[in-house]
Amino acid sequence: MRKNKLKEIWKNNGTVFCGWLHIPNTWSAELMANAGWDSVTVDMQHGLHSMETAMQMMQAISTTEAVPLARVNWNTPGDIMRLLDMGATGIICPMINTKVDCENFVGACRYPPLGFRSFGPTRQRIYAGADYGDFSNDETLAIAMVETKEAVENIEQICEVKSLDGIFIGSGDLRLSLTGTNKKTDDGGMFENAVDKILACCHKNEIIPGIWVPNIDQAQIMIQKGFRFIALQSDSMMLNAVANQLSQELKNLT
Amino acid sequence: MRKNKLKEIWKNNGTVFCGWLHIPNTWSAELMANAGWDSVTVDMQHGLHSMETAMQMMQAISTTEAVPLARVNWNTPGDIMRLLDMGATGIICPMINTKVDCENFVGACRYPPLGFRSFGPTRQRIYAGADYGDFSNDETLAIAMVETKEAVENIEQICEVKSLDGIFIGSGDLRLSLTGTNKKTDDGGMFENAVDKILACCHKNEIIPGIWVPNIDQAQIMIQKGFRFIALQSDSMMLNAVANQLSQELKNLT
Amino acid sequence: MRKNKLKEIWKNNGTVFCGWLHIPNTWSAELMANAGWDSVTVDMQHGLHSMETAMQMMQAISTTEAVPLARVNWNTPGDIMRLLDMGATGIICPMINTKVDCENFVGACRYPPLGFRSFGPTRQRIYAGADYGDFSNDETLAIAMVETKEAVENIEQICEVKSLDGIFIGSGDLRLSLTGTNKKTDDGGMFENAVDKILACCHKNEIIPGIWVPNIDQAQIMIQKGFRFIALQSDSMMLNAVANQLSQELKNLT
Amino acid sequence: MRKNKLKEIWKNNGTVFCGWLHIPNTWSAELMANAGWDSVTVDMQHGLHSMETAMQMMQAISTTEAVPLARVNWNTPGDIMRLLDMGATGIICPMINTKVDCENFVGACRYPPLGFRSFGPTRQRIYAGADYGDFSNDETLAIAMVETKEAVENIEQICEVKSLDGIFIGSGDLRLSLTGTNKKTDDGGMFENAVDKILACCHKNEIIPGIWVPNIDQAQIMIQKGFRFIALQSDSMMLNAVANQLSQELKNLT
Amino acid sequence: MRKNKLKEIWKNNGTVFCGWLHIPNTWSAELMANAGWDSVTVDMQHGLHSMETAMQMMQAISTTEAVPLARVNWNTPGDIMRLLDMGATGIICPMINTKVDCENFVGACRYPPLGFRSFGPTRQRIYAGADYGDFSNDETLAIAMVETKEAVENIEQICEVKSLDGIFIGSGDLRLSLTGTNKKTDDGGMFENAVDKILACCHKNEIIPGIWVPNIDQAQIMIQKGFRFIALQSDSMMLNAVANQLSQELKNLT
Amino acid sequence: MRKNKLKEIWKNNGTVFCGWLHIPNTWSAELMANAGWDSVTVDMQHGLHSMETAMQMMQAISTTEAVPLARVNWNTPGDIMRLLDMGATGIICPMINTKVDCENFVGACRYPPLGFRSFGPTRQRIYAGADYGDFSNDETLAIAMVETKEAVENIEQICEVKSLDGIFIGSGDLRLSLTGTNKKTDDGGMFENAVDKILACCHKNEIIPGIWVPNIDQAQIMIQKGFRFIALQSDSMMLNAVANQLSQELKNLT
Repeated sequence: MRKNKLKEIWKNNGTVFCGWLHIPNTWSAELMANAGWDSVTVDMQHGLHSMETAMQMMQAISTTEAVPLARVNWNTPGDIMRLLDMGATGIICPMINTKVDCENFVGACRYPPLGFRSFGPTRQRIYAGADYGDFSNDETLAIAMVETKEAVENIEQICEVKSLDGIFIGSGDLRLSLTGTNKKTDDGGMFENAVDKILACCHKNEIIPGIWVPNIDQAQIMIQKGFRFIALQSDSMMLNAVANQLSQELKNLT
Repeated sequence: MRKNKLKEIWKNNGTVFCGWLHIPNTWSAELMANAGWDSVTVDMQHGLHSMETAMQMMQAISTTEAVPLARVNWNTPGDIMRLLDMGATGIICPMINTKVDCENFVGACRYPPLGFRSFGPTRQRIYAGADYGDFSNDETLAIAMVETKEAVENIEQICEVKSLDGIFIGSGDLRLSLTGTNKKTDDGGMFENAVDKILACCHKNEIIPGIWVPNIDQAQIMIQKGFRFIALQSDSMMLNAVANQLSQELKNLT
Repeated sequence: MRKNKLKEIWKNNGTVFCGWLHIPNTWSAELMANAGWDSVTVDMQHGLHSMETAMQMMQAISTTEAVPLARVNWNTPGDIMRLLDMGATGIICPMINTKVDCENFVGACRYPPLGFRSFGPTRQRIYAGADYGDFSNDETLAIAMVETKEAVENIEQICEVKSLDGIFIGSGDLRLSLTGTNKKTDDGGMFENAVDKILACCHKNEIIPGIWVPNIDQAQIMIQKGFRFIALQSDSMMLNAVANQLSQELKNLT
Repeated sequence: MRKNKLKEIWKNNGTVFCGWLHIPNTWSAELMANAGWDSVTVDMQHGLHSMETAMQMMQAISTTEAVPLARVNWNTPGDIMRLLDMGATGIICPMINTKVDCENFVGACRYPPLGFRSFGPTRQRIYAGADYGDFSNDETLAIAMVETKEAVENIEQICEVKSLDGIFIGSGDLRLSLTGTNKKTDDGGMFENAVDKILACCHKNEIIPGIWVPNIDQAQIMIQKGFRFIALQSDSMMLNAVANQLSQELKNLT
Repeated sequence: MRKNKLKEIWKNNGTVFCGWLHIPNTWSAELMANAGWDSVTVDMQHGLHSMETAMQMMQAISTTEAVPLARVNWNTPGDIMRLLDMGATGIICPMINTKVDCENFVGACRYPPLGFRSFGPTRQRIYAGADYGDFSNDETLAIAMVETKEAVENIEQICEVKSLDGIFIGSGDLRLSLTGTNKKTDDGGMFENAVDKILACCHKNEIIPGIWVPNIDQAQIMIQKGFRFIALQSDSMMLNAVANQLSQELKNLT
Repeated sequence: MRKNKLKEIWKNNGTVFCGWLHIPNTWSAELMANAGWDSVTVDMQHGLHSMETAMQMMQAISTTEAVPLARVNWNTPGDIMRLLDMGATGIICPMINTKVDCENFVGACRYPPLGFRSFGPTRQRIYAGADYGDFSNDETLAIAMVETKEAVENIEQICEVKSLDGIFIGSGDLRLSLTGTNKKTDDGGMFENAVDKILACCHKNEIIPGIWVPNIDQAQIMIQKGFRFIALQSDSMMLNAVANQLSQELKNLT
């Protein structure tokens, strides 16, 4: 049996830091998994991987102690179940807007009688252990993304869904949905109010609050607010930034 | 025109034996297709393949007389249609729980006026013949999986869906759904009763009954009951078992 | 900011010619993109690519001025959004039968407040520009396929969907749906009447009418009718035809 | 045991027509293998495939009766042996300039005592038969390319190498080597004289003469001269030509 | 620093059992690496992998404690060095026939001043440790294959090559080279005498003797003779055998 | 005809800055090619790509103005010629130690009569132009790596090889070869003296001097010395550094 290390961090009141994988490649995944994150997420939404590459990336992550998560591109049970079979310790699902959305999502992550996940944990039998079927419902994370105006309105009911582990705020989409633009303009506190409302609801329901942040400053703000799961940028954003910076420094030498 | 060999076996009152492919690879697929099975199934549910690898595996299977089937991971028409275009002679669809589920599934396998499959049989024009459009509705198998308590309750209506060819029992999931555990405990005959009920319903509607079995003993029991489509384990289960056994035998030598 | 060249062609009353990619490969894609088409479509419906190969093919297309489009295999928002993030300048969606189908499709192509696309244009930030979020709703094409009897009946309401750019007739499927066969038999003008009805409705709503054609003669007919987006055959149909012809010519030499 | 069909064609005084694969893809390979060629060559020299794709393409070819050949990119025994293990029925080796080159090449294609090929015919055990080791030396083709001035000078000794099956003229490289340019200029008959000299030497030694030709006219000339193995263009040349032609025809309509 | 576990086993007078990978796939590789072998070898000679898949398979192996080895297809320094950079803890090189062959091979495995390996241990910096350059020459295995008559004649000089770790007998090729056939006929003790001579020479030079065996019986014989590195069959041989056996058992039921 | 932009930079006395690709992926390649480098090198030596991925990465690079180079893993003509056919504008070859090494390398990069490259520029006909054969010898870079004690001793003869374009110092390997360690210890000026000797020889022969540097400081030193081709780190070194730094900064927040 493989215990979920993220649950242990949270039990000890710690904060989980999560790397984010957009490059569809096992070598960049292995590098990221070795870079000190508690967890890394194979992002099937805005990342560029096919399902099979996602599996291979989870193998690469499994060479380390980092916990492999996956984000699906939509609330589709077939994909959720496959990523779990392939080795994901938890699923992050975008665009959960209603209680029904959330129930469908969580149900896809859980074996009966809690849910309707199909049994056949191909790679998990090796990665997590032969007894995977016995503990999977307890150790697998189901994390719903709240990132629309509608979802904020329904946040109370969403958070009440049984067996839901966390709420993850897609900060870009939430701002876009609330304000109609993804630029950081003066929104009269709309974004911050929504974040605070979600956070309060997580605390009330003893659900882990998480958020994606574009930089260290935002991370600091969100940790201080009480977020316990912080995802920062992505591998390709990092590579892009550092490569541009270094090539510019070289040009400045001449 | 390529006749479906499985239909001929069944017409002659034979039983179809089916290999099961979880390794996302064309070489292991070719080996399996040469191992004496009447059919091999590329399993997109608990197997680890992307869609493109599935196509390549069906090419590898096409080097033999084994009939290529595919299991989708969910009742999604886009995937069902693609796998048929790519060379599958039939589709196995998991989690068919109601008559509507089954109608949607079978409709995706059939061209109008029987169903709503989109025309564009890219690889089938080569593999099955230039006249594929003319005979596809007759030769293509639509096999619904019955593997939940709900499905057993609805089995009569499911079996009545026009143009459905077979019912395939996901024995692991069915047990799990009925009993809440996938261990073989004393369930008071629940599992066996459900199996018998499904079987009777298949016979009544002249639909082929099939089942996945974990070993030869279970296969024997199910054949004697009257199952006509038997899938055994999977390529990776077989490889796992034999490799563990042989490495242990070596260790025992020292 | 990358302007959509197809929109400019249409603004100048031109006709767009589109290559069609079924071979899941970057080299054949690059060849096709260099062959003089205004646009090439990565076809995820009847083509044989996984999502990741589709992305790589869009990279290959991006070495040229040809505009990359993608056809999804079904009206699934997760796939639509991924293909847009990966570099598609527009999406062609099959089997749009009702106004609701069309609204769901167009909504998946548009960021709020026009739609519900999730923000994270990974490759578009490089390919289309860092300001992609600002102009994407204007420059991205949403093209609905009308290819069933039901869709023809609902064509007025479909064409009224806000922000829809074009209607693309799947001529094979439309004929099949109307007549129950994909052979060119005397259908009493059913097919032609449907085509004319769709065309008229496009003109009325100032939407671009498009159609797939199997040969140059059909292309000429459709251009004369007023179609402005013409897709011809596919890469594998072309390769198949020319290879068969040349091998036959060789055999005729002996 | 799988007999080499090309040897039978030659025994019956026939001419072998060979398709040529540059696109690194299994679907285009399957199309080409179905297009009526006696043989298709997976070209690892000017084609774009990795070794593993080459193997998968040979699987695709094995769905037909076309005989799979492979061209290596250099006279390297490791690659020659792998391609044979993977399913090639013969090897074409470029740039054979001396008798020693040729002996090294042929030796790599033959098991002891004829040569030094390593035993381990992984895929051939399935494709060609469990008794592959017994007949491989007889059925496997070793075809040396003669395409330099030096090779023409050494043609007598090259043709005398025991167990060599054929000579294949790389017409582009031969012209380039002889004249210093690959344009068809007046070379005072240098190219034709070299071709005739090679041909005569093949006849004398009862070796099959072959040549690559860019078009049907050249094929006719070479067949009349007595060439028995004719390779025409490549898949990507054909696709390129037809796609350019068709897109131009479309443009001419407007 | 990652110690080489195989060296520790040998230091403790143990025998190393090695799995053998011919299927070019990361999932079968992960299964094999979990099956209880001390080591698994990615075989680039008779296996079907490209270099990149080999790297991914070594990642999959790295999820376990099994030691990843690789066999090259020929004594080519570029490939040897790449496989070491990619994560192989040792290289097995076929067809080492002379002292010079062996020196070239071992030199490619060692950094200066011991050899001429190029520095750039891309994946090893993560897998084996940032200090890889300091210990690599000590922990990396160089294992030469002796599998020809010529090699047996030169065995004394081969074994004297400085920094060579082991001799691995390719039993199929050795038999074929000695007797001209790979069938087990009465060879007057030629094969056994050669094996014994190689073994004695290994003992004299304190080099590890290894051999590939087709079954458990041969393994027992070779262990008793004193071999310390035993490779058994391959993944695809095992899968082939078990699949054929089980499908036959099923057929026997009817 | 596609002019080689690097030659123009050098003609204008500029310095070329080159990104270095170790991640075997097209998306990271496209990111790097967009990061402001004059050129990017697909490194087949210490990078992790197969040949086919290298080709796809060169397609991704071709979406930009950055000049694609490739480093082979050894002086093997087959690989050199393939990478050129696939789209490399130049080849960097490691471990050139003698004049003969260098002649073999440069010969493989040049068509007759300058060298012995085989004609068949598959992708270059599209990327560089249909007239590629006419200008290739002039526009293609042949850059020899000098990175051993032996090479430094032979530097005069190496630099005299006709049609050689540049010398690239592998600084890690050169230090290792000279001092027996890759640590920066006091080597009594051995490394610097060798660098200066190579540089002087380049200037004398009007060959471009290049060097790989681990950081901006070293780049500055080498530019001031007169190096005109500077390669900095690699994509995976950059990603590794930035990911470790950012995850550490996050941890420091708590």
